Amino acid sequence: MHHIPHTENHFTASETVRDIVIGMSDGLTVPFALAAGLSGAVDSSHVIVAAGLAEVAAGSIAMGLGGYLAAKTEAEHYDLEWKREARETIELPDVETEEVAQVFRGYGLDEKTVQTVTASICSDQTRWIEFMMKFELGLEKPDPTRARNSAITIALSYIIGGMIPLSPYFVGWEVRTALLVSVCVTLFALLIFGYVKGRFTVDRPWKSAGQTVFVGGLAASAAFLLASFFG
Amino acid sequence: MHHIPHTENHFTASETVRDIVIGMSDGLTVPFALAAGLSGAVDSSHVIVAAGLAEVAAGSIAMGLGGYLAAKTEAEHYDLEWKREARETIELPDVETEEVAQVFRGYGLDEKTVQTVTASICSDQTRWIEFMMKFELGLEKPDPTRARNSAITIALSYIIGGMIPLSPYFVGWEVRTALLVSVCVTLFALLIFGYVKGRFTVDRPWKSAGQTVFVGGLAASAAFLLASFFG
Repeated sequence: MHHIPHTENHFTASETVRDIVIGMSDGLTVPFALAAGLSGAVDSSHVIVAAGLAEVAAGSIAMGLGGYLAAKTEAEHYDLEWKREARETIELPDVETEEVAQVFRGYGLDEKTVQTVTASICSDQTRWIEFMMKFELGLEKPDPTRARNSAITIALSYIIGGMIPLSPYFVGWEVRTALLVSVCVTLFALLIFGYVKGRFTVDRPWKSAGQTVFVGGLAASAAFLLASFFG
Repeated sequence: MHHIPHTENHFTASETVRDIVIGMSDGLTVPFALAAGLSGAVDSSHVIVAAGLAEVAAGSIAMGLGGYLAAKTEAEHYDLEWKREARETIELPDVETEEVAQVFRGYGLDEKTVQTVTASICSDQTRWIEFMMKFELGLEKPDPTRARNSAITIALSYIIGGMIPLSPYFVGWEVRTALLVSVCVTLFALLIFGYVKGRFTVDRPWKSAGQTVFVGGLAASAAFLLASFFG
């Protein structure tokens, strides 16, 4: 009997968790790789700090505002499709009624039941449109506070994630020392982050931890090689 | 009668379009902002090229592989939920039958019709699980080729986007000249990109174009100020 509350918990948590995951995984990876890459090309921690902060500012704004606009666009898209469905239930009622019937025929109901259910759903215009939105188009009504919350969560997660790999360069160590500390600290942070993320999503924490460290390491290595070559 | 084909077009195109939008909007914005930011802190186009390429390598790997793993996780999540629903139709058939009935009661069907439809859906286990997956959990069966295609599309879009703002720094101009050309070229590219994106999503191309240019400009300005201050 644990099923229903479990499912609901899963869906309530998932949007915020997803935003934290989106922001933090890029925040840990990209500034880390950029700083590591530049360590192969320049001798000044100063330049790496400037580049890292510029990246964190740009990345958090691009991802946070990007998330905000994406959520706003999704809400507008929902309204647009709602209006179109509403118009079509008036202008093309036969086509729309047939579309409802098709959904149920797909589940192998006999024709008499299909007609009864369809007639009942189509007897109320709001219910009819809601049905089409969800079952034909697969659209759920977006939460109006989602865009703002999503933007703030993603941007903050990116900033927090990005400060971890950059922090050793702030101390004033030589670039190679800072790089070494940054690599150790960040790979460890990616391991923990991947583990926790794996717990929240598919319940395979170690696999997720391994993948997260692999992506971060690969990105940093590629950045290091490219920057060393062109720097 | 244009409705059905229109909707189908919309859904076929949307996943690839979404991946291109994800990759290109960050690819145009973040390397642009980073290069602009560093132009306020360092005098060498060389360092900016190295940092920019490191960023593009890191960003495309982080976003591409990130997209790949996200799609894989989604597929695993689907399988996991499918198995759970399958187990529950055997272990808790009454609870699961009631959950199907609840969906139809929500649409205001009379009790006799609810029972007929529910009995019909639950008479076939596969149909029953499919119904629960889609209508209770809102999950669609993921396309098995999606993860790989998504990764490649996002990474390539990021690289193509990122090369636009960096190209002026390759030419060998002074940093300030390269910055000026990069700003003009990239804001123009963001305008076109935002316009096309707006056409594909909410059919408000100019609003979308304005937003995209605004986000890119804001990210670049913030990066420039931060890097000038710390550089």
